[in-house]
Amino acid sequence: MAPPEVVDGPLYDEIQRFYARQVQLLGDGDVDRWALTFHEDAVFEQEAPPDKVFAGAAPPVRRGRTAIAAAARGAVAERRAAGRVRRYHIGMLTVRRAADGSVHTRYDALLVQTPPGGRADVHLSTTGRDELVRHGDGWLVRHRVNSHDNAAGAPTGPRR
Amino acid sequence: MAPPEVVDGPLYDEIQRFYARQVQLLGDGDVDRWALTFHEDAVFEQEAPPDKVFAGAAPPVRRGRTAIAAAARGAVAERRAAGRVRRYHIGMLTVRRAADGSVHTRYDALLVQTPPGGRADVHLSTTGRDELVRHGDGWLVRHRVNSHDNAAGAPTGPRR
Amino acid sequence: MAPPEVVDGPLYDEIQRFYARQVQLLGDGDVDRWALTFHEDAVFEQEAPPDKVFAGAAPPVRRGRTAIAAAARGAVAERRAAGRVRRYHIGMLTVRRAADGSVHTRYDALLVQTPPGGRADVHLSTTGRDELVRHGDGWLVRHRVNSHDNAAGAPTGPRR
Repeated sequence: MAPPEVVDGPLYDEIQRFYARQVQLLGDGDVDRWALTFHEDAVFEQEAPPDKVFAGAAPPVRRGRTAIAAAARGAVAERRAAGRVRRYHIGMLTVRRAADGSVHTRYDALLVQTPPGGRADVHLSTTGRDELVRHGDGWLVRHRVNSHDNAAGAPTGPRR
Repeated sequence: MAPPEVVDGPLYDEIQRFYARQVQLLGDGDVDRWALTFHEDAVFEQEAPPDKVFAGAAPPVRRGRTAIAAAARGAVAERRAAGRVRRYHIGMLTVRRAADGSVHTRYDALLVQTPPGGRADVHLSTTGRDELVRHGDGWLVRHRVNSHDNAAGAPTGPRR
Repeated sequence: MAPPEVVDGPLYDEIQRFYARQVQLLGDGDVDRWALTFHEDAVFEQEAPPDKVFAGAAPPVRRGRTAIAAAARGAVAERRAAGRVRRYHIGMLTVRRAADGSVHTRYDALLVQTPPGGRADVHLSTTGRDELVRHGDGWLVRHRVNSHDNAAGAPTGPRR
């Protein structure tokens, strides 16, 4: 069976490296540089259980790099105050190239959290769907939909 | 030290993408398309603690795509009834090309499960050993041995 | 935004495969072959909470392949005695090539442990920083700094 994605190996590698760097920056709390991996007009949607979305600082949809950075900054400040370290493991990446040169990705992500002196555990499992656009010789996220596995909307049916 | 695997970069990428798509399909419960990633005469062996193998619907060895699909369909139905989402993270992939053109892989897999509205956790850690064969411009699994880390037979000794 | 790493796709793939094999060997407890993935004069530093470093067999800094192998052998013997299986998932790899031909990597690692007949769990989350040097057509670790996420020194600030 032919893979449905139409993408060459070098592009796949490039996108893998894009995500590795992006999540390292977030794990390190370097929100300024992390935000620069998003397009200025990027949209970041979150599909999470209602209490997680509305109780937290982050609205379910953030529009624009500034709003995206603000939400991340809040989350980073909160976990730093608690001394927690958070890492993001992205895997199971598939990449499709669209006719307009953008690429559409899908991946699963594990968010792993460690309290100071304590044990790591998997805090959250999510699926991401991104549209990436070229910027110089790199990429920017133009649109992200991040579905938490504990949300009713988590993709568990046949793929759209 | 030279890596023991004899495989070019593009093939390695291709195999990575094969697994990413295969486990996405299973996580999404799209058993029909997942089953098509196995050869019609594929053999799927599971090395698990006795109670896991015999208590569950899946026999330790499933022969043929139809039997493999049936076992997966049972597992998917069970977790959907419980509202659980399951993701499979495959990593630490090594690939060897055999003289007959098939490839032999080994990888570790984490099965991460999330109850509705609840917290994700690592449900199972396994090691997979597959034989893959060409099919068109894609690949099919012809033989899989999946060893659960909690089974006595888990590979913890020097590699064969 | 251009990725800060200057590395071609084939090299990235090669380094991914290096790590996949290296951690498979350690997970399998094949310390002899695992040790050969380190340079004879390699230095392995661990940034862990004080009680983990000083209470365990491993000193915080191990100098030379022989000392590195001895520490690993102790850890493998201990977990075998307890019947535990340990797997290492390395991800979020970034690679930079230095002017002298060595490469500098950074990655996150999950250590997943399973007791006999029991459930897997994430035992530890760490960040690794390695210097790798060419050896024949493969690579060797010349210097590794492994920071446990539960240590005070875990990298949570902007990257150096």
